[in-house]
Order: sequence, then structure tokens, then C-alpha cells
Amino acid sequence: MNKNTKCPLRKSLRRVLLYRGILLRLQALGVKKVYSYTLGSEAGISAEQVRKDFSVYKIKGNQRGGYLVDDLIYELELIFYRNGRQNIIVIGIGNIGSSLSNYNKFIQRQINIVASFDIDPSKQYLRSEIPVYGLERLGEVINRFDVRTAIIAVPDIAAQSVCDQLVLAGIEGIINFAPVILKVPDEVIVNNINLSDEIESVIYCVSHAKPC
Amino acid sequence: MNKNTKCPLRKSLRRVLLYRGILLRLQALGVKKVYSYTLGSEAGISAEQVRKDFSVYKIKGNQRGGYLVDDLIYELELIFYRNGRQNIIVIGIGNIGSSLSNYNKFIQRQINIVASFDIDPSKQYLRSEIPVYGLERLGEVINRFDVRTAIIAVPDIAAQSVCDQLVLAGIEGIINFAPVILKVPDEVIVNNINLSDEIESVIYCVSHAKPC
Repeated sequence: MNKNTKCPLRKSLRRVLLYRGILLRLQALGVKKVYSYTLGSEAGISAEQVRKDFSVYKIKGNQRGGYLVDDLIYELELIFYRNGRQNIIVIGIGNIGSSLSNYNKFIQRQINIVASFDIDPSKQYLRSEIPVYGLERLGEVINRFDVRTAIIAVPDIAAQSVCDQLVLAGIEGIINFAPVILKVPDEVIVNNINLSDEIESVIYCVSHAKPC
Repeated sequence: MNKNTKCPLRKSLRRVLLYRGILLRLQALGVKKVYSYTLGSEAGISAEQVRKDFSVYKIKGNQRGGYLVDDLIYELELIFYRNGRQNIIVIGIGNIGSSLSNYNKFIQRQINIVASFDIDPSKQYLRSEIPVYGLERLGEVINRFDVRTAIIAVPDIAAQSVCDQLVLAGIEGIINFAPVILKVPDEVIVNNINLSDEIESVIYCVSHAKPC
């Protein structure tokens, strides 16, 4: 069992990220003030839960007068950006890995992909913007760029071995796109994203209109 | 608020998908029999929860003797494959959209991407395996292939408009990669996947070793 399953903050954290997305959209639309019930209704969450989540992160609001959108965004950004830009790496330059490496939205969120890795030597020269290295340079790159978080996008059969190498090299957080449950030490955080599962669960619900 | 937030089955469904992944791995390793506590321990879930989830889907086990891996996989597959292959479409052939269109794991799971759509005419001739159409052909393709589920992978500014067109054309389930909350009728299911949020939440937990 990894920390993922016992982190009490993870759910509120996800909601806070959701609120921030909504607030950024409201800000773009020129909205100046927002109420917890507006935010809640946009997010499909109760106003009480919104206020509770904010209190977890010590964000004070004025329930009667609402929150100022700009201030609220600033406070939410502080939660995430307190540590400045985060250097991360991507392992596996297949479809998903290369798509993530090219995804230009990350940098706006202070997520900086500094390098990617692949065992296929032909891929090690394919890309220009983000360098692609062989796995033998993992430790060196992780140290040089002070990388603490890595994305695993290798085939399932290679995922555990890559994971072991990452942990050995000092990685503390993993976003895992391989459809396997990784074994990691207790102190390493794993976030599993299984795209097939995500799609399949929607297909299931669509096919079984009730009780979904 | 969409059905997503009030579907009681969604959480157990996700766990069942997780169990299936673990079972397929155990099967590949030659394991013949499995106990609910083994499955639970692999998934980071209690054995009681595993048995409860199986009972929701009417899967009977023999607590003392364990489950036969092959039989259990067969029963889990039945849950998802009861309706045969599902035709889906992808809207937006940017990084994520084209990566999903090329992802060869879906077909093993009976997920069949029949077409993709993009407003950029130059992309409409780029790909060979899966055709890329302009959005004006949405209704026609949805009808022809009996598509009920769609993936939205367009820029955030275009997402709601694409969503409206999909719903109008009869789509009942949406996997949304655009970082916006879509407004849909109550009967439409939306599963939001925000990759930046997924990465950022790991970065946050890594940076705040406690209490995450």
C-alpha cells in the first residue's frame, strides 16, 4: 500500500485544483466576485464543502460578501507555487509520453519537463525541445535538475523496473500511466492514471443508464 | 451538476477495473487462485471492500477457498463486455487527441475509436488508420457507427461548444481532457481528466511530505 491510499489531503487537493480552474475561467470572463455556492454549483460540490476545503488550506473568505476572484486565485496559486517551478521527467517516449512531453499547458502551471528517457536509442535523438536520454543517465539528470517527480509512460511489463530505478535515484512522486500497480516504499507517492479504465467506466455507465 | 457526481456505482466500478488489472497480471504470472485479501492488498483496499464490490456486481466467491483467477476475470469481463465492442470518437487531434487515437491498448478492451474530428482541415488528411473528419460530419458518423461515447481533447475555449454539438448529436458519455467544467444535461455522463491537476497534486504531496 502506498501513501496515495492514505493521504487525507488528496481529495480536498483535487477539489482545490478544480476550484482554481473554475476561478481562472471566471476571471477570464471578467467576473470580480464569487460566492462559495457559485463555485460549488460550477464544480458540482456543496457550498459547505467548498468553504471546508478552503479552511483546510487556511483561506479565509467572507461568506456574506463572497470572495474576490483575483485574491482567491492568488491564494490558491500560493498553495501550489510556494515551491516555485518543479522540474519533472518523463520515462517512455511512446504515444502518451511524447504527447505529455509536447503538452504546452504544463509550463503555465510551473510544471517543467526537463528531460525524457527511453530505452530505444533511435528515440534518443528524435526530439529537439526536450532531450531524450537513455535510462543510464537517470541518476545524473535527477540530481542535476533536482527532480523529485517523474511520469512513467512505459509499457506495463517495464513499469515496475523503471519505478525501482526511479525510487533508487531519489524520486518521491510518480504519475503512472502504465496499467499496473507499482510496488513502492511507503514514503513514495503514486498517482495511477489508467486511460482505458477512465474510458471504460464511462462506457459502462452509458450502457447501464440505471443505476449510473 | 451532472450524473458523474451522483453515480453511486462509479467508485466500485473503478475498483473493479483495478481488480481486473491485478488479476490479468496474476494470470500472466501463472497464478490460479486468489483470495480477497490478496487482491485487496495488491490494490491497497481492504478484503471486506473487495468482497463488497464483488457482491455489488453479483460475483460469488468462496471466501475460504478463494476465487479461481480465470473464472473471476471471466466474470469481471462480462460486466464490461456484455454490450460487445463500443465505438467511440475523439474530437481534437492535438497532442492528447492524436496520442489517444494511436493508443493500441484500447482495442484489447473492446474500445474502438472509429473516427476523429478536428476543425483544422490540414489535419483531416494527416492520419491513415483512423479517419479525421471536420465537425460538420459529427452527426453522420455518430449515427452510422452507433457512437454513444466521445472523447473531448480540444482547447479549453472550444470545449463547451464541441460538447453541445456532441450532446445534440446524441452522445451520452464524455471523457473530457479540456480543463473546463462542461455544462451537460442531467442524463449525460462526464468524466473529467485534467492531466495538469493529476501531476500537480503529486508535486504538492511531494513538496509537503506531511500531511500527505
